[in-house]
Amino acid sequence: MSRPTPLSGFPEMLPAQRIVEQYVLDSIRRTFELNGFASIETRAVEPLEQLLRKGEIDKEVYVLRRLQAAEGEADAGLGLHFDLTVPFARYVLENSGHLEFPFRRYQIQKVWRGERPQEGRYREFTQADVDIVDRDTLPFHYDIELALVIGEALSALPIPPVRIQVNNRKLAEGFYRGVGAADPAAVLRVVDKLDKIGPDAVGQALVADAGLSPAAAQACLRLAGITSSDASFADQVLGLGVSDPLLDEGLDELVRVVDGVAAIRPGLVVADLRIARGLDYYTGTVYETLMSGHEDLGSISSGGRYDSLASDGRATYPGVGISIGVSRILGRLLGRGTLTASRSVPTCVLVAVADEESRGRANAVAAALRGRGIATEVAPSAAKFGKQIRHADRRGIPFVWFAGDPAAGEPDSVKDIRSGEQVAASAENWLPADADLWPTVNSLSTEDSTEEEQGS
Amino acid sequence: MSRPTPLSGFPEMLPAQRIVEQYVLDSIRRTFELNGFASIETRAVEPLEQLLRKGEIDKEVYVLRRLQAAEGEADAGLGLHFDLTVPFARYVLENSGHLEFPFRRYQIQKVWRGERPQEGRYREFTQADVDIVDRDTLPFHYDIELALVIGEALSALPIPPVRIQVNNRKLAEGFYRGVGAADPAAVLRVVDKLDKIGPDAVGQALVADAGLSPAAAQACLRLAGITSSDASFADQVLGLGVSDPLLDEGLDELVRVVDGVAAIRPGLVVADLRIARGLDYYTGTVYETLMSGHEDLGSISSGGRYDSLASDGRATYPGVGISIGVSRILGRLLGRGTLTASRSVPTCVLVAVADEESRGRANAVAAALRGRGIATEVAPSAAKFGKQIRHADRRGIPFVWFAGDPAAGEPDSVKDIRSGEQVAASAENWLPADADLWPTVNSLSTEDSTEEEQGS
Repeated sequence: MSRPTPLSGFPEMLPAQRIVEQYVLDSIRRTFELNGFASIETRAVEPLEQLLRKGEIDKEVYVLRRLQAAEGEADAGLGLHFDLTVPFARYVLENSGHLEFPFRRYQIQKVWRGERPQEGRYREFTQADVDIVDRDTLPFHYDIELALVIGEALSALPIPPVRIQVNNRKLAEGFYRGVGAADPAAVLRVVDKLDKIGPDAVGQALVADAGLSPAAAQACLRLAGITSSDASFADQVLGLGVSDPLLDEGLDELVRVVDGVAAIRPGLVVADLRIARGLDYYTGTVYETLMSGHEDLGSISSGGRYDSLASDGRATYPGVGISIGVSRILGRLLGRGTLTASRSVPTCVLVAVADEESRGRANAVAAALRGRGIATEVAPSAAKFGKQIRHADRRGIPFVWFAGDPAAGEPDSVKDIRSGEQVAASAENWLPADADLWPTVNSLSTEDSTEEEQGS
Repeated sequence: MSRPTPLSGFPEMLPAQRIVEQYVLDSIRRTFELNGFASIETRAVEPLEQLLRKGEIDKEVYVLRRLQAAEGEADAGLGLHFDLTVPFARYVLENSGHLEFPFRRYQIQKVWRGERPQEGRYREFTQADVDIVDRDTLPFHYDIELALVIGEALSALPIPPVRIQVNNRKLAEGFYRGVGAADPAAVLRVVDKLDKIGPDAVGQALVADAGLSPAAAQACLRLAGITSSDASFADQVLGLGVSDPLLDEGLDELVRVVDGVAAIRPGLVVADLRIARGLDYYTGTVYETLMSGHEDLGSISSGGRYDSLASDGRATYPGVGISIGVSRILGRLLGRGTLTASRSVPTCVLVAVADEESRGRANAVAAALRGRGIATEVAPSAAKFGKQIRHADRRGIPFVWFAGDPAAGEPDSVKDIRSGEQVAASAENWLPADADLWPTVNSLSTEDSTEEEQGS
């Protein structure tokens, strides 16, 4: 068999990169759990009809069939999930009798989309979602809490600062109605293309495709240009002279989100009235997130309020949630070498082996160190000590242990192979520096340089 | 939309069950990392030709296609991986220039098989694999180490005791050759059916299908009946009067594994000469593992030595590895209710809300507690305190916090809702008991009852 080549869109990591990913996922998990979110995982597959019910991504779904399905066996009708929100809505309906509401859940899993791979877009990628759903009604304060939780999760990571851009679907829809749009959803879809095709083309499409008057199209473009890090956006909107009850409701909600978040974490959110989010299940607040210095990557964390994604006829389960695009963030920062791990293995100590007869003594040392929480492996062979030290060095293992001969009264010793310092030591009480116990993750950004410790 | 129903073979967990699974996966990860194994993940898909190269499971592979593949677009030729060994072998070949050998890796991921679901067999399930691969040759002591690592990982879990059954493919193949088998692999495949069809049917098939003489078939059955927890199996084999160089080599290897493991962890392994393992890539030591009191479940952890699974023409990468069937273990123990979590949420403290005007004060208390590592959420609404306490109680949250009014000189207090005891407290220094900080996992087996603590 010849050497295999990578599959485009299905990135894999080397061990040192995976250590960074584990650090990031552990950190996100810890923030979510500290905030009282329970973990769930859903199966990778959903019935196709469920996958195609929401969102405009039918071209991107991977469908499954059994390789040797029996003659006449129907296609299973299953596809791989393309996000974690649709499966979560299904999970809530299926298990509603066993869940306590409001239900706070996080979910960190891979998702699959058959789209054209490019930077920041993969066919297989990891998302970290956090949602709160309730039965029938969901208090509005969760729209504020979700932004704060995501801000806490992202600011705990060794990544550049982030800014969450918020908008409100009611605000946009009310405004479009107020300028006379017959189909506000069509206007939203056109405005959503601002980043791709620019304001001139959007203005023309609003007239040609969404049926607006030229003046109404200009008003919609002006709305999309409004942004502020405080509640002043509301006056700017009112200054456009459009009125509609739904617009008022959306303005009020967006003011509450911007003020509520700013009171606790100033600078985290900014009202940005061009934010639309393509998925059609959002009904109120919508969030996107830009990473400082990496705005070209697009949103690294997006979500919103959905009032009717899950309904079983007897009850409706409104929710609000945000998803962190873990693969998008790491693809960029690992790719540019700004996030690195201090070593490629969890190992802190390599126990040298003088000869194969003494491997048992080396094993005993390793077991004693592991029993005290120090990751340890034993050298693969009784090569010359210089070769064993190089074995450790190539992996970034900081310490090499030499077992003495108890019969000869010779003590053990441990060498820090970075400094060359070697000291007598006992496996019963020796401890490495805290920073050496597990691999650390180093962030070398242009804006700041931090060292973060990796827990196990 | 009506209430969805579960998909057979794709089990999902409720939040409290997922807490148990997270505890188990965290524990396995910690053991593997303490032993110096680095984590990798491989993509979920492999080229079909790669998947079908090894193993007899072609009927079980799920093939992918894009739902709306372009006209004339070829099938992607991708399938979901059915184990983690075949993808790992491909990963080693693809990245051999970037890996340090011997390469110690663990891998905890889902795998998919389109087989008929039954207890212990799923269409989607989680495996935890640990392997060591080297370039060209792999020292034999790793066959001993792998059994010890898996023993350490499994005995750290809140599950019944396990026994690893070991055998050796060389021993079996050499013996079959020694009795005159023209096709030792065919004999192995028949012997592998012992558990399913019994010794009489196997004896007949050895004659009819594998071409053995009746005497040779009887010798093979007697070989399969040999078992011992020490090296005495070797004398029993020699007593059958069959000789072959490969048999001698296999006997020597199996003695080394049994003696080597027993010296460190007596009772963990037993030589059992009926163990065959269906997958055809094993070439030496093979492992299966039974859980005490759940022998009917079959092996919960299996693997072996493979000398030529990965080869790129210039180099061969021999390895030895074992896979823990996490879903098989948890499906049984969660299904029988012998493994439970102390609560269904990570939350330790619910902060009560007296009225919506004071929600900000409750949020500040929650932030202070979280900052000190205590998982905290704030009550969803300013309902009567009795209702807020029931909200905590239904989730198993042990503490409810009441924020005092600083303006009135009123201190905060915290209530243990299990005992009803309420004491004055400050969010700056209050600490719960260690056992209450995170959910704990309780094991209620008939053999022992242990409480294990859940880290985050």
